[in-house]
Amino acid sequence: MKRTLITGCTILTMCEGDAPFVGDLLIEGERIAAIGPELKLEQPADEVIAGKDLVAMPGLINAHNHASMSLLRAFSDDLKLMDWLDKKMLPAEARMTPEDVYWGTMLGTAEMIASGTTSFADMYVHMDQVAQAVVDSGMRASLTRGVVFLQDDGGKRMTEALHLIDTWTGAGEGRITTMLGPHAPYTCPPQPLSEIIQIARSRQIPLHIHLAETREEVVKIRERYNQTPTEYLHELGMFEDNHVLLAHAVHLDAADVRLLSGMRGGVAHNPVSNLKLGCGIAPVKEMLEQNITVGLGTDGAGSATTLDMFAEIKAATWLQKLQHGDPTLLPAWQVLRMATIESAKLLQIEDEVGTLEPGKKADLILLNLNKPHLQPVHDLSALIAYSATGADVDTTIVNGQVLMRGRQFTRFSWEELRREAAERAARLVEGL
Amino acid sequence: MKRTLITGCTILTMCEGDAPFVGDLLIEGERIAAIGPELKLEQPADEVIAGKDLVAMPGLINAHNHASMSLLRAFSDDLKLMDWLDKKMLPAEARMTPEDVYWGTMLGTAEMIASGTTSFADMYVHMDQVAQAVVDSGMRASLTRGVVFLQDDGGKRMTEALHLIDTWTGAGEGRITTMLGPHAPYTCPPQPLSEIIQIARSRQIPLHIHLAETREEVVKIRERYNQTPTEYLHELGMFEDNHVLLAHAVHLDAADVRLLSGMRGGVAHNPVSNLKLGCGIAPVKEMLEQNITVGLGTDGAGSATTLDMFAEIKAATWLQKLQHGDPTLLPAWQVLRMATIESAKLLQIEDEVGTLEPGKKADLILLNLNKPHLQPVHDLSALIAYSATGADVDTTIVNGQVLMRGRQFTRFSWEELRREAAERAARLVEGL
Repeated sequence: MKRTLITGCTILTMCEGDAPFVGDLLIEGERIAAIGPELKLEQPADEVIAGKDLVAMPGLINAHNHASMSLLRAFSDDLKLMDWLDKKMLPAEARMTPEDVYWGTMLGTAEMIASGTTSFADMYVHMDQVAQAVVDSGMRASLTRGVVFLQDDGGKRMTEALHLIDTWTGAGEGRITTMLGPHAPYTCPPQPLSEIIQIARSRQIPLHIHLAETREEVVKIRERYNQTPTEYLHELGMFEDNHVLLAHAVHLDAADVRLLSGMRGGVAHNPVSNLKLGCGIAPVKEMLEQNITVGLGTDGAGSATTLDMFAEIKAATWLQKLQHGDPTLLPAWQVLRMATIESAKLLQIEDEVGTLEPGKKADLILLNLNKPHLQPVHDLSALIAYSATGADVDTTIVNGQVLMRGRQFTRFSWEELRREAAERAARLVEGL
Repeated sequence: MKRTLITGCTILTMCEGDAPFVGDLLIEGERIAAIGPELKLEQPADEVIAGKDLVAMPGLINAHNHASMSLLRAFSDDLKLMDWLDKKMLPAEARMTPEDVYWGTMLGTAEMIASGTTSFADMYVHMDQVAQAVVDSGMRASLTRGVVFLQDDGGKRMTEALHLIDTWTGAGEGRITTMLGPHAPYTCPPQPLSEIIQIARSRQIPLHIHLAETREEVVKIRERYNQTPTEYLHELGMFEDNHVLLAHAVHLDAADVRLLSGMRGGVAHNPVSNLKLGCGIAPVKEMLEQNITVGLGTDGAGSATTLDMFAEIKAATWLQKLQHGDPTLLPAWQVLRMATIESAKLLQIEDEVGTLEPGKKADLILLNLNKPHLQPVHDLSALIAYSATGADVDTTIVNGQVLMRGRQFTRFSWEELRREAAERAARLVEGL
């Protein structure tokens, strides 16, 4: 079993109550074997990483993504939501082959690895290719085939959704987990949605669904069912027993938030996407007051333009401070927890990752503080939350495997990936 | 005269109507000598920079800063504004020696150079040291001694403010310009403020002042003068003839915005600081509709925690999209103009910098696109505005001098600067 020792770094475990300290961290195989001020090893490690100027912290966990859309980054910005979707995103996505999805996902994983994300939740199509990219990239992911019921497809999407779960759960040395993904209230009528909820409950499969991203969705659901989107899901029984990952949850009123209190799972907050599309500010303060778990996600790069979780960390705390005129809201430590252990809870992997603790899987990053914008060091959490970006990540480790070291990828050729992504992206948007 | 040739880069001039194109850029001495698809030189350049994967664009211009506060980065975040100011910032700043200000400013310039900023407007104290740091760093700056009139100081602050102007204007090969800086409406009573306005008018010195940063300021000025802060400045004649750089301008009502219509100068919008302190959203859309020039600034790193103008670019467009629920507002090109040529107008240097044009001073940056988050390239402006960060800057050139190349500083020792900053910062905050 390979043993990697990181020596003399600053360790931010992200465990409640832990202050940062200087020490060593030992990885054995897939797991963290020991953390301490000066570890004495009986036999030398296979690899030693000198931790001077580096901060070890849990890898960031992106709780809502469509990684393959990285091929459409900066293709259609500054448009009205429906123009963006109907004239640009949907026509380009309709051209995507399974191979495009593979390479698009690989591009997304490259960006995530380079910016310190070690796990992500993804909802997309051609999920065999997404899963293969996760296996090849070395990342950890919770995968979902998004299912809409706008046209009858003879059950094809549901078949694919269940195929993903049956085929890929546990693949990649256990790095892949799966969910069932009814797309959103406005794309899933009551009957098929009820059926999915039942399947998820009986098979103990978690659910991943978009909720109340836009004001338009709230209007639409009101017209159809005389309910809020949250009430609609609640009445169908989604929150009775299922673990549910709710993406966005921007347009929730106080009663909606109370309905979600006590739910299993929680909310993936995507502040950059919500800002960029002009959607609004999710009631994060109110959800936290109801003890709803709130993690962070980027949404796809087609909207957010970037998969850098450090941008979400900043945007999340800024928006609560702004909304309530109170700079004490979502302080640095809390928002860093949201990007790590709280997101882990949404993916049901909090027993394995999300904090640095002996026995947990070794999913961690090393940040390099030897830069003008990260000096001097007063409060480390505040410095990381408010001043660091993904580019400050020096090393990314998932499941004990070093995926990036000194900002060089170890598992794939960036030049090949870049070339494939550029060629495919050009074809997808030609003439649009 | 030294000649530097950048070959085969993508050139984004930021001139109205210019699309990006691949070409060469020649620098002779302090100025851009030529830009074109394939420049033929009669004699070889002294230095050639291969532009593959690089984008040349104007250096960013930070229109409101307190660079020396970089020593207090991440020292007191997530606090109420008055706790932040009274318990942390003011006591720490009171300990600052002139030498501390020199090294703090050097740290700020290092961060700015590393993140693609080439000019900045600064308001602080110990301005001889700030000016010396500007000279030493190689940056361009508009410097202001902030003047408050809360206690009688026998005219000391005003003397220093005029000393700065008389001594340093034009220093550093013309890189330094100066302004007069009455601090803010709530720290400057009518009589001394009138006098400053008169001096500025008669000597044709531009003014730099904070305006309506917080709701508390609006309340305070209402109580004292039964006016809005904007009305207060307007009635004292500030906008009759003077060039005025207004920092923040968050809490302006529609009548305030109309009062500013036609003003010389304009507004430095600091969205990250406004978000982080929970101040609010400046009426940028409304100001632009009144043809008020709006540029971007970071404010000091004591509040914003970073001096990365790419963060301001994103936050500026996000906030207008959010405020008006309209993702088409402040599109990428427009917000990039705000960070370059519009900010240049605020500093009155728009004839010399802010766009890439032959004859202008060579203040430019080279962005490296060979990174996962900057591939593929669909719309270059959108990619830069929404996906780039300061860490993507490969090379920074000011006044024809290369200040950073391949992310290595050329004019100062980063290790010495880091050590000085760390030691001084530790002393400033001890026991606070």
